[in-house]
Amino acid sequence: MPERREDEIRRELRRMRRVIDVAMGREAADLTLKNASYVNVFTGEVLTADIAVAEGLIAGVGSYSGREERDCTGRLVLPGFLDAHIHLESSLVAPAEFARAVLPHGTTTVVTDPHEIANVMGADGIAYMLQATEGLPVDVRFMLPSCVPATPLDESGAELERKDLDGFYGHPRVQGLAEMMNFVGVLAGDEAVLEKLAAARLSDRRIDGHAPDLAGNGLNAYIAAGVRSDHECHDLRDAAAKLERGQYIMIREGTAARNLEALAPLLNEKYGSRCLLCTDDKHPGDLLEKGHIDAIIKRAVGLGADPVAAVKAASLNAAQYFGLHDRGAVAPGYLADLVIIDDFQSFRVEAVYKRGVLAAEHGAAMPFPVPVVEPGLTERAHHTFRVGSLTAEDFRNDGPLGVVGMVDGEITTLDAGRAEAADTARDILRAAVVERHRGTGHIGLGFLRGYGLKSGAVATSISHDSHNIIVVGAGPEDCAAAVNRVVELNGGIVVWNDGKPAAEVPLAIGGIMSSEPLEVVNEKLEAAKAAAYALGVNPGIDPFMTLSFMALPVIPTLRLTTRGVFDVGSQSYV
Amino acid sequence: MPERREDEIRRELRRMRRVIDVAMGREAADLTLKNASYVNVFTGEVLTADIAVAEGLIAGVGSYSGREERDCTGRLVLPGFLDAHIHLESSLVAPAEFARAVLPHGTTTVVTDPHEIANVMGADGIAYMLQATEGLPVDVRFMLPSCVPATPLDESGAELERKDLDGFYGHPRVQGLAEMMNFVGVLAGDEAVLEKLAAARLSDRRIDGHAPDLAGNGLNAYIAAGVRSDHECHDLRDAAAKLERGQYIMIREGTAARNLEALAPLLNEKYGSRCLLCTDDKHPGDLLEKGHIDAIIKRAVGLGADPVAAVKAASLNAAQYFGLHDRGAVAPGYLADLVIIDDFQSFRVEAVYKRGVLAAEHGAAMPFPVPVVEPGLTERAHHTFRVGSLTAEDFRNDGPLGVVGMVDGEITTLDAGRAEAADTARDILRAAVVERHRGTGHIGLGFLRGYGLKSGAVATSISHDSHNIIVVGAGPEDCAAAVNRVVELNGGIVVWNDGKPAAEVPLAIGGIMSSEPLEVVNEKLEAAKAAAYALGVNPGIDPFMTLSFMALPVIPTLRLTTRGVFDVGSQSYV
Repeated sequence: MPERREDEIRRELRRMRRVIDVAMGREAADLTLKNASYVNVFTGEVLTADIAVAEGLIAGVGSYSGREERDCTGRLVLPGFLDAHIHLESSLVAPAEFARAVLPHGTTTVVTDPHEIANVMGADGIAYMLQATEGLPVDVRFMLPSCVPATPLDESGAELERKDLDGFYGHPRVQGLAEMMNFVGVLAGDEAVLEKLAAARLSDRRIDGHAPDLAGNGLNAYIAAGVRSDHECHDLRDAAAKLERGQYIMIREGTAARNLEALAPLLNEKYGSRCLLCTDDKHPGDLLEKGHIDAIIKRAVGLGADPVAAVKAASLNAAQYFGLHDRGAVAPGYLADLVIIDDFQSFRVEAVYKRGVLAAEHGAAMPFPVPVVEPGLTERAHHTFRVGSLTAEDFRNDGPLGVVGMVDGEITTLDAGRAEAADTARDILRAAVVERHRGTGHIGLGFLRGYGLKSGAVATSISHDSHNIIVVGAGPEDCAAAVNRVVELNGGIVVWNDGKPAAEVPLAIGGIMSSEPLEVVNEKLEAAKAAAYALGVNPGIDPFMTLSFMALPVIPTLRLTTRGVFDVGSQSYV
Repeated sequence: MPERREDEIRRELRRMRRVIDVAMGREAADLTLKNASYVNVFTGEVLTADIAVAEGLIAGVGSYSGREERDCTGRLVLPGFLDAHIHLESSLVAPAEFARAVLPHGTTTVVTDPHEIANVMGADGIAYMLQATEGLPVDVRFMLPSCVPATPLDESGAELERKDLDGFYGHPRVQGLAEMMNFVGVLAGDEAVLEKLAAARLSDRRIDGHAPDLAGNGLNAYIAAGVRSDHECHDLRDAAAKLERGQYIMIREGTAARNLEALAPLLNEKYGSRCLLCTDDKHPGDLLEKGHIDAIIKRAVGLGADPVAAVKAASLNAAQYFGLHDRGAVAPGYLADLVIIDDFQSFRVEAVYKRGVLAAEHGAAMPFPVPVVEPGLTERAHHTFRVGSLTAEDFRNDGPLGVVGMVDGEITTLDAGRAEAADTARDILRAAVVERHRGTGHIGLGFLRGYGLKSGAVATSISHDSHNIIVVGAGPEDCAAAVNRVVELNGGIVVWNDGKPAAEVPLAIGGIMSSEPLEVVNEKLEAAKAAAYALGVNPGIDPFMTLSFMALPVIPTLRLTTRGVFDVGSQSYV
């Protein structure tokens, strides 16, 4: 180890010497952005100068020449964007594909919580994601999943205790503990929960929060326990209470949850420096059509936010919160993570540099090597289903079961009574959650109203947060067939009709991510959606995303679990 | 180690549970400040609430009761103050005495650079100060001295290379590398200098700067090398150039250098969050009469600065810069380091709490145990003189020597020609610097004009930055006697006249600090000053402080070194 440190110091010394030589003007820069108007996040100004880059760092801002020069006259240069909270798995693609998608939008750092894959693979899931992101041109940082399983009701693929997480704090890309959703446990002083917080604190790492509308003494207790951010605010009152008590507020604008319109007024002088931007989740189509953090900044500006405050929320503020001292500003010594745009209004990203290397231009990422995951982990990730072949019998019920009532445009549900059989005329469909991690054979049966399917079945191995297989169908045969097909694929989304798949999206990595390119996955997903809608699915809901939330036993009213229909209000099975 | 971590986690868990119970209102707080108007550094507001304290932390801000309650109606509660850069040795007392002096002024954290004692004792000096500050009610954090000796001309007690510092980065109270004064070395790419920066960077620690008026490409290079702060700004132009490039600016207002009046306008919305407060040095009388950070905030407010911005510079901003995530705000989960004052204008500190414990009230610190330094280090600190008994012969010259011309109220000097002998009528005095660390026998001879002494001699073992013995006298006998007395004392300040000490200030800890109480040291110092002035010393200069700078070979024009009079301009001995 001492020898390694000596090597590192020698390397760092060579690097610094070169940076100093460039800064002093003794040597030409590796790259100079000439005549660039850049956002100075320290002073809140837009200044104009040459930006000299050497060894991946900004060497100087002033008057410089470079071996390579790029004229930035009339362009704006911004520090690379940081997504402060995302579950990369939500993109349905492998991390390298995600990186390829977001680089052209100026994202150079993301902080991911591998909560989804950890629910499938436990600590191996975290290890998989760390390896799958090593060396990517988007720097992927990790917050360790704090709530696996999400609830005691969940039959997930793993339980992550504090001791399972401890080893990861030594990893150079782990910044802390991810969203502590179990605020009830914190307030109750639950030992297993507090242990995780204590470990993060003792490692001097950040702890992210998740506590919508928590206020008063409860909020005090939650924050006093060390939770220093929140990304669940949906109004200014909630945000102000948290800001006042010292939490950083992550303004979230993703695919499923969107709070920017409500929270954009925070990007002002009073609160601006304590705000970050995040997406939480980004689905393939959303990524391809809308972009990423760039779209949030653009929209914030459109909503009247100060552009510099919005840029700062996406850069310096986030870097400060996570202790990433090397990034977040266009200034000497900072990483040359740079985004060139036309102007704040149209916010078209022209080029993106990561550590001084062109990473994307005019909407396309430059090629980069895909990180190699060790064979054992890859193998493990591709074999996460322990479900034997099912038959219609497995989906038949003996007596009345609860009916989960779906609501257009929402993920909350209604208690829609009881039923004994599916009845497509009354939009009552058979539904089930099949435990798939441990071969327990648990199949929770129930009924779903409001989904609209007229024939066949839809099954998916994305179901929050445990990612068991959820299926909805007109009859038990269709359900069994659709689930069997999901298992055959090692995971994915299947629309089944007429004895065969009408469409499918294979998701063989942990049953939740595809190894195909994002565009291909998106096409398959859109085709599957079309197939689902063609089978009658209610146009007011997303056939897979909304379905995936029907298994999450924390949101009212009724939910479908591996043990049957569960009433969240009374905390009992129907 | 794993067992120790388990113990720590269990302890932290118990502590958190109690804090949560108090925050929730399930248990009474250890202490509640009732009806307190407190400065919210996150929102910039003054809000009113009860502040509940448990386990040394702020548990909640709202409506609370406590086992102990303190009515704060009509009072202001502020987060404890942080001095971002000081050399504790400048107080001339041991750290515990310094703590006793500053606690009643609201200081709960100081960041010290043990540069002075390191010049005497090297790494042992750092170790001494770490031990002498362990567990004090003022949390003393360290920046490692980066420039020992200060110049290659200095004959100091030690040279600190990067490898000598490396081991200290593992200490929990070491925050980084102290003021890199050798900016010339940085810009030249000097290996020994860059190595120190590289080591700090690789340990993810802060690097403080010291580069008055450095601008343009040089400033870019210096900052690109990782230097993230500066405390040498004396005007807004200099400060703005550094702020713009991402440096934090420490606004310095100490005994020797005072920049507050020039820099107070920085405490505004544009720059305020990037400013810190520091003193750099605080002499005994100044500490006793003026106070500490409280006096800076008060004066800043008097100069028109926003009070909240000034408080924030003394708390949250500094904590953020140094990565001290546990302090700097009145908010749940933060250390209960709290200062109660009357109002921003009179700024009278009524009480100070450190980790929730009353640490000072109405100007007096509560008693606390003095840290014990291990005997070997104590012994070493009290025996730092290797000088045999000197005689008048040692101070006689053979030919003409340079005359260092002192300037009233300045530490710069003039070239006042050459002289062969002292002549009190023309105010030309004999002067010498006696190497005292290594027994080299080096005695640099010269003359001093402008000091004013009419008879006797003044000698001191405080002489920047090497702390050799500097002496000025009417004749060689007096010089020899005064130096011998300093050596006899194991260090100190001696005013010699008529064959005996007219006054003396013993400084037996490294020859630069006393083990007596601050008030005693101050009395002795004032008596010695009076004695020196009585012997004719020019009232326009400080008889000891100004003298102590005559040996610092980096400030123009002439300086006195252990090898004789040195011309800083031509970099040669006269």
